[in-house]
Amino acid sequence: MKFEAPVAVTEIAAYIGAELVGNSQLMATGINEIHKVTPGDISFVDFEKYYNASLQSAATIIIINKKVDCPEGKALLVLDDPFSAYVKLVKRFRPFEPATKAISDSAVIGEGTVIQPNVFIGNHVRIGSNCVIHPNVTIYDHCIIGNNVVIHAGTVLGADAFYFKKRAEREVMYDKLLSCGRVIIEDDVELGAGCTIDKGVSGDTIIGRGTKLDNMIHVGHGTVIGKNVLIAAQVGIAGKAHIEDNVILWGQVGVNKDLTIGKGAVVLAQSGVPGNLEAGKVYFGTPSEEARNRKKEITWIKRIPEIWEKVKDLK
Amino acid sequence: MKFEAPVAVTEIAAYIGAELVGNSQLMATGINEIHKVTPGDISFVDFEKYYNASLQSAATIIIINKKVDCPEGKALLVLDDPFSAYVKLVKRFRPFEPATKAISDSAVIGEGTVIQPNVFIGNHVRIGSNCVIHPNVTIYDHCIIGNNVVIHAGTVLGADAFYFKKRAEREVMYDKLLSCGRVIIEDDVELGAGCTIDKGVSGDTIIGRGTKLDNMIHVGHGTVIGKNVLIAAQVGIAGKAHIEDNVILWGQVGVNKDLTIGKGAVVLAQSGVPGNLEAGKVYFGTPSEEARNRKKEITWIKRIPEIWEKVKDLK
Amino acid sequence: MKFEAPVAVTEIAAYIGAELVGNSQLMATGINEIHKVTPGDISFVDFEKYYNASLQSAATIIIINKKVDCPEGKALLVLDDPFSAYVKLVKRFRPFEPATKAISDSAVIGEGTVIQPNVFIGNHVRIGSNCVIHPNVTIYDHCIIGNNVVIHAGTVLGADAFYFKKRAEREVMYDKLLSCGRVIIEDDVELGAGCTIDKGVSGDTIIGRGTKLDNMIHVGHGTVIGKNVLIAAQVGIAGKAHIEDNVILWGQVGVNKDLTIGKGAVVLAQSGVPGNLEAGKVYFGTPSEEARNRKKEITWIKRIPEIWEKVKDLK
Repeated sequence: MKFEAPVAVTEIAAYIGAELVGNSQLMATGINEIHKVTPGDISFVDFEKYYNASLQSAATIIIINKKVDCPEGKALLVLDDPFSAYVKLVKRFRPFEPATKAISDSAVIGEGTVIQPNVFIGNHVRIGSNCVIHPNVTIYDHCIIGNNVVIHAGTVLGADAFYFKKRAEREVMYDKLLSCGRVIIEDDVELGAGCTIDKGVSGDTIIGRGTKLDNMIHVGHGTVIGKNVLIAAQVGIAGKAHIEDNVILWGQVGVNKDLTIGKGAVVLAQSGVPGNLEAGKVYFGTPSEEARNRKKEITWIKRIPEIWEKVKDLK
Repeated sequence: MKFEAPVAVTEIAAYIGAELVGNSQLMATGINEIHKVTPGDISFVDFEKYYNASLQSAATIIIINKKVDCPEGKALLVLDDPFSAYVKLVKRFRPFEPATKAISDSAVIGEGTVIQPNVFIGNHVRIGSNCVIHPNVTIYDHCIIGNNVVIHAGTVLGADAFYFKKRAEREVMYDKLLSCGRVIIEDDVELGAGCTIDKGVSGDTIIGRGTKLDNMIHVGHGTVIGKNVLIAAQVGIAGKAHIEDNVILWGQVGVNKDLTIGKGAVVLAQSGVPGNLEAGKVYFGTPSEEARNRKKEITWIKRIPEIWEKVKDLK
Repeated sequence: MKFEAPVAVTEIAAYIGAELVGNSQLMATGINEIHKVTPGDISFVDFEKYYNASLQSAATIIIINKKVDCPEGKALLVLDDPFSAYVKLVKRFRPFEPATKAISDSAVIGEGTVIQPNVFIGNHVRIGSNCVIHPNVTIYDHCIIGNNVVIHAGTVLGADAFYFKKRAEREVMYDKLLSCGRVIIEDDVELGAGCTIDKGVSGDTIIGRGTKLDNMIHVGHGTVIGKNVLIAAQVGIAGKAHIEDNVILWGQVGVNKDLTIGKGAVVLAQSGVPGNLEAGKVYFGTPSEEARNRKKEITWIKRIPEIWEKVKDLK
């Protein structure tokens, strides 16, 4: 997420109550996750094992819970609870703006686009030309939709990431990381009915040009789906997955977070994908493996009684 | 379900056309299912094998299809079709009240709660303070929502239980048990987009304090979910399940009805839970078993060809 | 799909720019898929291996990409791209009509039917008597709903078929086949919350009398579900499946396209059905097989370590 205008790091430090270490002349240009940061961004880290990755990332300003050596040209904002400081920044720079009407005056809608009744379009939404948005669709604030996009009824774009920090000592144990990312739907995408595409935590959830989703598909926060991808009904994709171009996911497939499904891979129905899949291959099963291997396994399982007949009298 | 005021058992008997056996001075205070009844409640039973459980339950008034001995201090309402008599009572004491507007005048909404556009809030709904109800949410009559609750777009609270009696002799075979229970969402709960939480048949469906649901989660009638439970996207939980505190259900898990998942248990993605699970353990597979055992099985399956090589020449 | 009035085949030929071969006096009465065509219908074929089936079907007019012998009394419309010609006809004869209000003036709604707030009812919809349509339901144009039907909140009837032709040479690779079929819900059906029932490509998607669906069920284009069928939550059924009377599908089952599940068959939870199932049997697993066989397999898998103990010292 980028700020509307750069903010002095000193102002950030004062706002969250952090000790500023390093370059105090810096201007922050946005907030982002460690794997998506660009120069000017603020990021946060609260686990020692991620300190190095954070400090060496492109982030210019790092909110951190230990006073470590500050890399040249960067700034550290040191305090006890970086997570809460981050949430405080999101609340300030991307505050929730309750709607005053069903289609926000700040939304920009292109020529030839049809908005059917009972649609909600939030603040700062941009929709391209020649789209059809069917009834009862919800488009949260800041979503961006390209041209020639069709969104079927009841679909929801931009709900919050499902992302919580466990605070075992609290009565309400799960502490929510407020999301400030967006949903971006590129040109010529079709989304079926009853889908939910969550916004990114601080980066964007993206559905690439020409990709087609059937009904009731869940796409988690920050997931990036390539071009000309085909996804059948009731597929669920967790957060920060990367689905490359031309992939096909058949019905009810489940995809874990933080993985890559390579270009042109095909995942057969009801499979569960726990980790990366190579490009161009066909997968099946939970956990998924190459379909030809999984099918051999199914055949082997049916031969266990035959094996038993051969060995049952052995001592 | 409790009546607004007690009703004489003689009035109930006359209304449903039952023979009254036992104490005719009783006042009925509500209607409930056999495993949730409290003194004063009416319950019904139409299978001989459940007679004893019903007669010995806390229910004070039992609608029954056979004239059996009436326990001391109770009343039996004897007629041929207890199911239909029960449905008749639900229609009378919890009638469907068509809405006259999108947000009922009888709904009570707390301070600081934001209701976004296109939300439906039914009759007698109560919503606490500092909640956010996102667009296109539907809250059926009689739902109760606590404080600091977030409900994302398109979610539906309080639709009818999926509960039918099979009447094989009829052209329309499935006879619906009308639901009169409620949905209760406790404080600090977050519900993702596109979830459906059904009302109880006569008891309540409850989601405990601090519990967080991702998108497209189905919770069946009368299910009780504890505190600080985490449920990932596309999980389905059938009716009358009991999910204890601190349980984690990962994506696309399916949970059968009438079972208990013990405190802190974790069920890995796409697993199917057919029966009770012990507290504190990790489960995987369909049917689910302890994850470490299931993973060993997966390894063993891959060794069948090796076993075959050893035995193929045996006679 | 039937036209409002017959159209001369010569007019069709001119409109799509095809060479007319055969009987030029014919009148076209509608458009349909090869397995549903009736005399008077236009169908299309663009794969040589389906030529014979098309030419010998009941279709009277065939759009085809090769000039072959025309069967007696029929007409061929020959052009390079039958798929695009078909889409052009759908656009002309079943054009998308943007709504001017949430409940179309052209919709016909029967006596005693309750329409709750925030419902969308499209053009030319017909709804019978004594139905309840709960909030935030979307009913696309041309859907037909019988009497005594209950549709719970958020359900979507009549979204487009998920049906694309792959054009590998194009930048936007998937070319959409516009749907012109309908959704037909017969009497006494109940649909749970958050379901999506797609329209047929050119035929109809039908849910038979007395059938009951739980929440979040997906029914694909052109699927025909019989009478008194029971479908539990989160089941997904692909296009053109045929689910016969009295079938029961438990939760999260997935059903492939173009298959038949025989009368009274039962499919246990989370199963995946790849092909036809026989009537009256119980099935389980992915891929589904008879439940008793699948349960034996699960037992055999647990015995592999025992077999290994017997053979591990064999050479």
